This record gives sequence, structure tokens and C-alpha cells, in this order.
Amino acid sequence: MTEDDTDKDIATAGMSAFAPYLMNRVIHRYNQTLLAKMNEMGLSVTKMRALAALAAQDGLTVNELTVYAVTEQSTMSRTLDQMARDGLIVRRVSESDSRARHSSLTEAGWEAYRNIWPEMRKAERALFEGVPPQDYDVLLKVLNHMLENIRVHKF
Amino acid sequence: MTEDDTDKDIATAGMSAFAPYLMNRVIHRYNQTLLAKMNEMGLSVTKMRALAALAAQDGLTVNELTVYAVTEQSTMSRTLDQMARDGLIVRRVSESDSRARHSSLTEAGWEAYRNIWPEMRKAERALFEGVPPQDYDVLLKVLNHMLENIRVHKF
Repeated sequence: MTEDDTDKDIATAGMSAFAPYLMNRVIHRYNQTLLAKMNEMGLSVTKMRALAALAAQDGLTVNELTVYAVTEQSTMSRTLDQMARDGLIVRRVSESDSRARHSSLTEAGWEAYRNIWPEMRKAERALFEGVPPQDYDVLLKVLNHMLENIRVHKF
Repeated sequence: MTEDDTDKDIATAGMSAFAPYLMNRVIHRYNQTLLAKMNEMGLSVTKMRALAALAAQDGLTVNELTVYAVTEQSTMSRTLDQMARDGLIVRRVSESDSRARHSSLTEAGWEAYRNIWPEMRKAERALFEGVPPQDYDVLLKVLNHMLENIRVHKF
């Protein structure tokens, strides 16, 4: 951030110069697109996010999945119970904390992930159409920096 | 986007390489911070967003404000009624469409905006702490490009 834009507010610079406004607009549209697609496939967005998070990182707990999926713990807890009943995940008790359980995708869970991933990728690609690769790399770098700046959880 | 990352999915690249995941995490935290702050000030987030949007652009309609504030039309409609009752906005019938009304901030509305803007700016600055100015500029450019890519409204 430069010093000289300290006093430049939304009233003079306009909303297109205010990043949080743009991020809210963009991510809302992305979420709506996937919500519609997941509804067609009979899946919830929370289940979609849990599948993707567990594909990226095995053994996550309900607390971690709640944060990664940006949802409520009660919603994630219910979703995981259903996923276990449906044979998409298995859970094992944590060695370090007997109250915590680590989830892993089963083969059926991986198959479900492989069904939804192309839709997630497609929606992401639609966002970034025409964005130069070097700009995309900067965006990823800045977003990771922002997450470090503001997250309240260790993960 | 480069060609060679077409097959790189979240399972191999990890979630920190998936921009929509990062955006959801970051914007959720920003929204939560402002929600808490607005609650302290006795304001709703919808009212905060309406004040900011009208400060940036005079004469917006309920449809435009609904999109800009990323909310439901019924919520925005109710919020504008309350803001009019509280003397924060005035509304005039559109010359081109007698069913539409254009909202403008009153002097009290501008004062309310000037009260909330520092909080919005502070929350935004917290996101971008330590981000180089040139990266911030790229982020804004890419976000505006993304909004062009996916918006379903003309505004």
C-alpha cells in the first residue's frame, strides 16, 4: 500500500478501487455457480468443500474442516456423520487427543471428489479467463499473504 | 493460466494453490471483523454497504444496491426504508421508470458514512499489511477483470 492513498476513500476512488467489495462480489458469484451445480448433483456445498479439503490433506479433524470449509461446526459435524454413513469417509480417534477424530476419504470418497473437482476447476477457470499467468501468480501470492495476516486459527 | 497446470488439482497442489478457497477464507474473516464492529456501532452490514455504495455513486436503485451489497432484494428494500425513516437517504422517482427510485445520501447519511468508512478502511488495511504496492495494484486489476468475467448484471 502506498502512503498517498491513505486518504483516498471509496467516495472519491469508487468501489472498483476497494478490494473487499470486489472480493465479496466475485466470490459470491463463484459460490452461487457451484451451489447450483452441486444441487444438480445432489450434493451440498459443505460436502463438496469437505471432499476437496480431505483430498488436499488427509486426516483433518472437524475443527480443521470447519475452518477450511468456512462453515459452522454443527453443519460440518452433521455433514461428516452423513459422509461416514454414506461410506465416503472413515474416521479414527486421534492418538494425541481421544476426543478428536481424523477423517480420511475412502475409495468411494475419492471417486466423489473426482466427480466434483472438474466442476470446481471449471468455475475457477471461468473467474480467471483472460488473466495473464504472471498476474494469477501474484494473486495467489497476495491471497496467501492476506490469509496469514488475518487468520485467527493456526491452520 | 498456463496450460501445464490444467491437470494440477487441489489433491496434488494443495488448497493454498486454489484461489477461490483462499478468497472465501479471507473475505469471510474480513466480513466477520466488520460485522462485530458494526454491531458495536448499532449498524447492520447491509446498511454499512448501502452507505458506502451511495457515497461512491449517487442515485443508485434498490436493484443496483442489492447487487453492490451482495445481499437479498428484500433485505436491501427493508434497509432502505429504515434509512429513509432515519433521515440517512432521500429517494426520488426515476424519470425513465416510474417504478424505480434513486437513493441519495442526506447530510446525516454522509456523516454516517464518514463514521463507518475508517472502520472499513482499517479492516481492509489489516488484510493487506505487508503487501507490496505493485502486488496490490495487480490484485485490484485482476479482481476487476474477474468481476467482468462472471457478473450477470450490467453493473
